[in-house]
Amino acid sequence: MAHINLHNELPGISGLLTEFPETAKPLCELAETLLRNPHSLSSGERELIAAYVSLKNDCNFCHSSHAAAAAAHLQDDYKIIDAVLADVETAPVSDKMKALLIIAGKVQQSGKLVLEEDIKRAKMAGATDEELHYTVLIAAAFSMFNRYVDGLGTWSPQGREAYKAMGERLAHSGYVNRPA
Amino acid sequence: MAHINLHNELPGISGLLTEFPETAKPLCELAETLLRNPHSLSSGERELIAAYVSLKNDCNFCHSSHAAAAAAHLQDDYKIIDAVLADVETAPVSDKMKALLIIAGKVQQSGKLVLEEDIKRAKMAGATDEELHYTVLIAAAFSMFNRYVDGLGTWSPQGREAYKAMGERLAHSGYVNRPA
Repeated sequence: MAHINLHNELPGISGLLTEFPETAKPLCELAETLLRNPHSLSSGERELIAAYVSLKNDCNFCHSSHAAAAAAHLQDDYKIIDAVLADVETAPVSDKMKALLIIAGKVQQSGKLVLEEDIKRAKMAGATDEELHYTVLIAAAFSMFNRYVDGLGTWSPQGREAYKAMGERLAHSGYVNRPA
Repeated sequence: MAHINLHNELPGISGLLTEFPETAKPLCELAETLLRNPHSLSSGERELIAAYVSLKNDCNFCHSSHAAAAAAHLQDDYKIIDAVLADVETAPVSDKMKALLIIAGKVQQSGKLVLEEDIKRAKMAGATDEELHYTVLIAAAFSMFNRYVDGLGTWSPQGREAYKAMGERLAHSGYVNRPA
C-alpha cells in the first residue's frame, strides 16, 4: 500500500498520475517529449536509457515498464535490453549508444561524475550536442520518476509478463493520453 | 564552459532552458506547479525543500537560486535557511516542516529510504497526504534539475549576492515567464 491514500489501485506512477492531475500534466508532457518526440535518438534507444537508469535506481515499476516499452519499440523480445543491463560495453548497440549509456549511468549517481572524457568519447562516436542533451536529461528525469514512485511507496506487479501490454501502449500511444 | 554548445552565456539551468525550448516548457511548468501554485505548504516552505535537496546534491546553481527564492518568500535574510542547512532538527521551523525535510533528505538519496515511521512522524505533526506528495515530488524533481545542471557541466556564479535578484524574480514572477 502506498504511503498516502490514492483512491485508486493503479500501480507505480499510474496511481500517482491519476490521483494528482495538476502535477501529472507537466510530468506526462516531459515523458512524452523526452521519449516520443521526433529525435535523432530513436524512441527505442531513449526507452533503453530510461530502463537502464531505472534499473540502477532499483525502481521495479519504472524499470519494468520502460524495458517493456523499449522491447516494443525495438521488437527484439528483450535481447538488446538484457545485454545492456548485463554489460553496456559488450552489448549489441552502437559505440555511440555505449558512450551515451555510460554517461546516463554516471548521471544516475551524480551529474558531477560526467567528465570531459566521457563527452569526448561520445562525440568521437558521433553523438551530437542534442543527443548528449537528451541523454543527460532522460537520465536526470528518471532519477526523478524513480524517486517519486518509490518515495511514496507505490506497489508494482512483479515479472515481465505483467508489463507487456503497458509497454506496447507506452510505445504506440505514449504518455499524454493515458487511459483512466 | 558547458559540455555542449549553448549559444548563450546564461548560467546553470537558464542556459539550458533558453537553448532547448521544447524541454524547457514541461520543466518550467513543473517548477511553477510545485513551487508557486496555491498549496497548504507556502512557497517559502517549498523553496526551502528545493534548496535543501540541491545543497545535499552539491548543485551550486540550484541551491543558491532556490535559497535566494526561499529568502525572498520568507523575508528573513537566510536565517531560517542557514539553520535548516546546518541541522533540520534544531532549525526554527515547525515540527511538520522538520519531518517533511527529513523525508526530502531521504528521497534525495533514494525513494526506498522513506519508511512508514517517517510518514507517521510527519502525519503526527499534522502533514496531509497532499503535503507528503509535494514534499516527495519536489525532492525528486530537484534530484532531476540538479543532475541536469551539473551533468551538462553548466557554469554558475559564486556567492549569495549574485543570486539575490534572481531569487526575488523567481519568488515574485515565477518559472514560466522567464526573461530572455
